[in-house]
Amino acid sequence: MTTDKPEKRSYFAASGNFADGSDSPRAFLDRCIAEMDAREADVKAFVCTNLDAARAAADESTERWKAGKQISPIDGMPVGVKDVMETADMPTGQGSALFEGTMTGRDCAAVVALREAGAIMVGKTVTTEFAATHPGVTRNPFDLERTPGGSSSGSAAAVGSGMLAGATGSQVIGSIIRPAGYCGAFGYKPSMGGINRGGSFDGFSQSCTGMIAASLAECWSMTREITSRTGGDAGHVGVTGPMTLPAASKPAKVAMLQTAGWANASDGAKAEWQRAKDTFAAAGIDVQDRDSDAKVAEVEDAIANAMELSMNINAWEGRFPLDTYHRDMDASKLSESAHKRLEQALSMTQDQFADLLAERERVRGVYATLKGAFDVCVTLSAPGAAPKGLEWTGDPLFTVPTSLVGMPTVTLPVLQDDGMPLGLQVIGHTKADAELFAHAGGILELF
Amino acid sequence: MTTDKPEKRSYFAASGNFADGSDSPRAFLDRCIAEMDAREADVKAFVCTNLDAARAAADESTERWKAGKQISPIDGMPVGVKDVMETADMPTGQGSALFEGTMTGRDCAAVVALREAGAIMVGKTVTTEFAATHPGVTRNPFDLERTPGGSSSGSAAAVGSGMLAGATGSQVIGSIIRPAGYCGAFGYKPSMGGINRGGSFDGFSQSCTGMIAASLAECWSMTREITSRTGGDAGHVGVTGPMTLPAASKPAKVAMLQTAGWANASDGAKAEWQRAKDTFAAAGIDVQDRDSDAKVAEVEDAIANAMELSMNINAWEGRFPLDTYHRDMDASKLSESAHKRLEQALSMTQDQFADLLAERERVRGVYATLKGAFDVCVTLSAPGAAPKGLEWTGDPLFTVPTSLVGMPTVTLPVLQDDGMPLGLQVIGHTKADAELFAHAGGILELF
Repeated sequence: MTTDKPEKRSYFAASGNFADGSDSPRAFLDRCIAEMDAREADVKAFVCTNLDAARAAADESTERWKAGKQISPIDGMPVGVKDVMETADMPTGQGSALFEGTMTGRDCAAVVALREAGAIMVGKTVTTEFAATHPGVTRNPFDLERTPGGSSSGSAAAVGSGMLAGATGSQVIGSIIRPAGYCGAFGYKPSMGGINRGGSFDGFSQSCTGMIAASLAECWSMTREITSRTGGDAGHVGVTGPMTLPAASKPAKVAMLQTAGWANASDGAKAEWQRAKDTFAAAGIDVQDRDSDAKVAEVEDAIANAMELSMNINAWEGRFPLDTYHRDMDASKLSESAHKRLEQALSMTQDQFADLLAERERVRGVYATLKGAFDVCVTLSAPGAAPKGLEWTGDPLFTVPTSLVGMPTVTLPVLQDDGMPLGLQVIGHTKADAELFAHAGGILELF
Repeated sequence: MTTDKPEKRSYFAASGNFADGSDSPRAFLDRCIAEMDAREADVKAFVCTNLDAARAAADESTERWKAGKQISPIDGMPVGVKDVMETADMPTGQGSALFEGTMTGRDCAAVVALREAGAIMVGKTVTTEFAATHPGVTRNPFDLERTPGGSSSGSAAAVGSGMLAGATGSQVIGSIIRPAGYCGAFGYKPSMGGINRGGSFDGFSQSCTGMIAASLAECWSMTREITSRTGGDAGHVGVTGPMTLPAASKPAKVAMLQTAGWANASDGAKAEWQRAKDTFAAAGIDVQDRDSDAKVAEVEDAIANAMELSMNINAWEGRFPLDTYHRDMDASKLSESAHKRLEQALSMTQDQFADLLAERERVRGVYATLKGAFDVCVTLSAPGAAPKGLEWTGDPLFTVPTSLVGMPTVTLPVLQDDGMPLGLQVIGHTKADAELFAHAGGILELF
């Protein structure tokens, strides 16, 4: 067990030295593996790894960089894959005892594209059961007594601890932004449909594949290397924009959101929210909140019920496959929370679901009124530091609105609470992901 | 080999005699099995069956009907499942040598719901490879030298021959309506998103799960028993309306479409199209076509390129999983057409796909102008009788417009060409599937 403070390990910070051989993808991977040797026994970010294949792939990438023939900026980048996403060379267990060790023999769409771009799939990262609520075994690398957040628990912990430069995640409530924030990593959930979910076991209408990485630039490059090859979900173009990080652009007008999470926020977190607001004002940004702007107040009202609404939508949409798992497989291997979600689904009617979708559309309409009025919204990634204990992955009230409404969002690891990392969440407008990254970059420069 | 003319076997025509015991679900199943014994060796509609389980389920259903405790109108109905849809008790081979015999251990969403409604999954029905173009082994029950159509080949042949009362299908180009029409069955493709596709290997944005059955009423009841339990695709309410077939309602205004298929239509098929038009006029229906109505002409122009547009959209969206099958599995087990589709996908760019989606939206907008102006559109299910030979599943030009635009459509087995069945396709407005069935019922009464 290492007692060093975890540090993120940026691939892009190293890759400038690959051409002259003073550093290399293989050496970078070896440093990741050394970090894994030091921390993984405690952090438990991985379900499994394929290090022999990773080393061989890193050697090939090393040769490409030396020859100036790297396929992309992420050629050789060590990446983790959330264990709800299929991989041809490693099992996909979905965080469920029902599927532990299940080999599907194929890569999900995002992993196909990442490999084509030269990235290296180092291992599968721990997820909560079916990317829902029942926690996995991962611990927070900043404090082993605390949750890393969920459901992309292992991806956030592996990146936050420097064991990997990047990892895939998925979010339907708060499963990327919350754990990334708790673990001091950058996290990105795209606009709805933004990254092809083919081969990922997360079929909810609000669910998105996204990225957790050591920098904003790596989140963006991973995304564009995927979407330029395989697009978004079926029927969606997917995230577009420049192939490398859009130039930083300080927003002119920012809406500070409190969300329903404010009631649960710690004093420290509230102070950080205020510090962010003051920082924006000091930088000459026009900052509004619910008290100063009627549109922002309307949005706050509209998203107040985002959690219940999202959970109910997910319950109906999650009937399958829980119904067949319960009936046709070993139901005793389903968590209590999975049983409860199935029970809720079976008690719902199609008409009720229609009402839920109508309400979601209404909320989306209210949020859309901010377009043109504000460049971005800003809030916390969570109501405070990661909670102590591993039985709960933390409060998602600050993250659920973007999942409900389908806006793109990033978390920047620039805040703290209780000696732990806390994320500053920057929220953009639907299908304007590149603009969001430009403004997030501008905000990052202020901290 | 039987030489009798195939006859559809309606479960609803029999179920009135279940209460008094003069007929029963078990006896109905036994008649289906006798038909299979007579025809299946020639027709080859099934990949596999599970007759022992079917008989046991039919006995249970028989008891429920006797006690007046049937779960639904389709309790005990013998159903086939297209082999791209997962079943817990039978393998899901996707018509591909790569997946022959693959057990996934779970039911797809539609099959979960069908079983809950009491329906009996008799077997898996032959599909073209991945529900695309490479044909399976099934023959047309009306002429064994002819194709049954595809991709829902086995489902159409099994229903058309009376081996089953109903079966599931899927359509992204013409895979329900075309084979149902060729095999003398009723077929139904819902509005986009209308029936939950969870657990079905057809992830295209235009793809729908649908039904092939011995009557309009059975298509409708199967659908509603599914959607009332498990809804549509994620984010879609799914097909709504009465739980039993909406009352027949003669349409007041019908647009006769020729589609791009007209250029390939046989003289016999054209004569049948004209016969339908004359029948409507004789029944006092206001009938318009491209020559008499400017809106219809605009729609004909807008859908003229539906085939190329759909194939290009499907190519990009079908990159995954063909890419990983090609790279990570035994590529020699992929058909030549699958190799070609992958090659096309790899040559496309995300920007090109964006243009394709924009063009599809434009076409959808043009079609939407018919809403309010016409109750339904009517056309053929195919340009003529099923072609001779098994190497080609037939021309989809008459069916692809509804897949492109996302409208609901049914085919009625009321036309003939070259001594073979030909379908009359009735096309409704998006998310107005119940109204479509009412008008289709009204039209059926005219033939």
